[in-house]
Amino acid sequence: MEKLTITTRFCETDALGHINNTSYFIYLEEARIKFFHQLGYGMNLQDWNFILASTKCDFLSQGYFNQKLVISSYISKIGSKSFQLEHDITCEETNVLIAKANAIIVYFNFKEQRSENIPDLFRTQLENHLQDKS
Amino acid sequence: MEKLTITTRFCETDALGHINNTSYFIYLEEARIKFFHQLGYGMNLQDWNFILASTKCDFLSQGYFNQKLVISSYISKIGSKSFQLEHDITCEETNVLIAKANAIIVYFNFKEQRSENIPDLFRTQLENHLQDKS
Amino acid sequence: MEKLTITTRFCETDALGHINNTSYFIYLEEARIKFFHQLGYGMNLQDWNFILASTKCDFLSQGYFNQKLVISSYISKIGSKSFQLEHDITCEETNVLIAKANAIIVYFNFKEQRSENIPDLFRTQLENHLQDKS
Amino acid sequence: MEKLTITTRFCETDALGHINNTSYFIYLEEARIKFFHQLGYGMNLQDWNFILASTKCDFLSQGYFNQKLVISSYISKIGSKSFQLEHDITCEETNVLIAKANAIIVYFNFKEQRSENIPDLFRTQLENHLQDKS
Repeated sequence: MEKLTITTRFCETDALGHINNTSYFIYLEEARIKFFHQLGYGMNLQDWNFILASTKCDFLSQGYFNQKLVISSYISKIGSKSFQLEHDITCEETNVLIAKANAIIVYFNFKEQRSENIPDLFRTQLENHLQDKS
Repeated sequence: MEKLTITTRFCETDALGHINNTSYFIYLEEARIKFFHQLGYGMNLQDWNFILASTKCDFLSQGYFNQKLVISSYISKIGSKSFQLEHDITCEETNVLIAKANAIIVYFNFKEQRSENIPDLFRTQLENHLQDKS
Repeated sequence: MEKLTITTRFCETDALGHINNTSYFIYLEEARIKFFHQLGYGMNLQDWNFILASTKCDFLSQGYFNQKLVISSYISKIGSKSFQLEHDITCEETNVLIAKANAIIVYFNFKEQRSENIPDLFRTQLENHLQDKS
Repeated sequence: MEKLTITTRFCETDALGHINNTSYFIYLEEARIKFFHQLGYGMNLQDWNFILASTKCDFLSQGYFNQKLVISSYISKIGSKSFQLEHDITCEETNVLIAKANAIIVYFNFKEQRSENIPDLFRTQLENHLQDKS
């Protein structure tokens, strides 16, 4: 499991006084990319091999301005051309679960604009982060 | 079914040359709010009774800068305190399906910060937009 | 003078209950691009010749959710390799001036990553939109 | 001078392959707020006394995805009801100057929706960060 801590920004709030729902998808993209970086991928766009096929977020508790949020990410499923990431977003201070999310990512060749089989080395790395959904 | 047409903005693209995934959630929020407006709700924040409990988006085809996207929205489920919206996002010019999304919305009292039963009048209005998922 | 009307989005507000300052720069980019489109430029990225060198916005009155804002744009200065746009943002309903902004745009060759002289045809088009700052 | 380091996010890029101009205003808001936090203000919205009257950004060099940017902020002018912040944005790795910006902030009473004189204690704190524009 990889953990990323972000601090919510003022412009990510909305007039209801809480973090706007669209902002969570910014945090989730950040968490996915940091996850890839930890594995040594996606450091630059020339060798970018990931496309987001689907993402979902359940909003369990409201988030607020200047809150430190911990995003824990792990792999829950690995297919031939795609894999699934799960994310828990919790408040660093109180440990309250703010949101649960997931993302299905397709291994994608941008030059040829088509999906490809996940290479063996990358598959092994993903397997090291495989975990049951809690 | 309610339809909203938006034109994608340049700042909603990313360095992969397409519309960034987070931008779709901006369009979906816009579609939800216009849907409420059509029913006569949510015109201002003083009588705002909706909180997003969950949202999901499947990205089926890439979107691009300056593309006209049609977001079709309808109700797929009505519970006692919540309801579900479905959205199809298509390219206005080609009719290609770009994304499919849904959202679970809880009827929420912001002053007391708790969910409430959907009032009968609003339930009737939602039922008029009820449709099977296609 | 070119006019663009936008409707402010909910996610463009912030926890102070008004439109967040960063959102105005989204509207201003939109206005610049529509201005170029009116002149027949910038419809796609392959022949994109503009880079923003500087922009400034004076916030005169607060903007709110679901407000229709009219952005009036005109040219105030034309140099050899750059030109300046001015923008007035007013509330469509009340005519109240919400913000005044400007932008200096450099004619830029992205392939060679350097500025270039404004071509004569484009200069003539810009001159047709030249106006004194009011 | 206060320094803040941020890492650019993927969704802050655009289809020209660089950081979109609107994203810099996100970083600048972040820098302003951190500046206030350093002085002990603006930790929550109940005692928020700042409204942005004007902001300007000169874009000197392009920024890119996953770049560490250092935003140095200092006070350049103090009036009776407003003050001016200056910001230099540099690449942490190369020290290249990416952007120069400023912001005029009005001391503002949100409850009464009007500007107020800067209190003496806060003025003294601002004076400690006063610096000539370089």
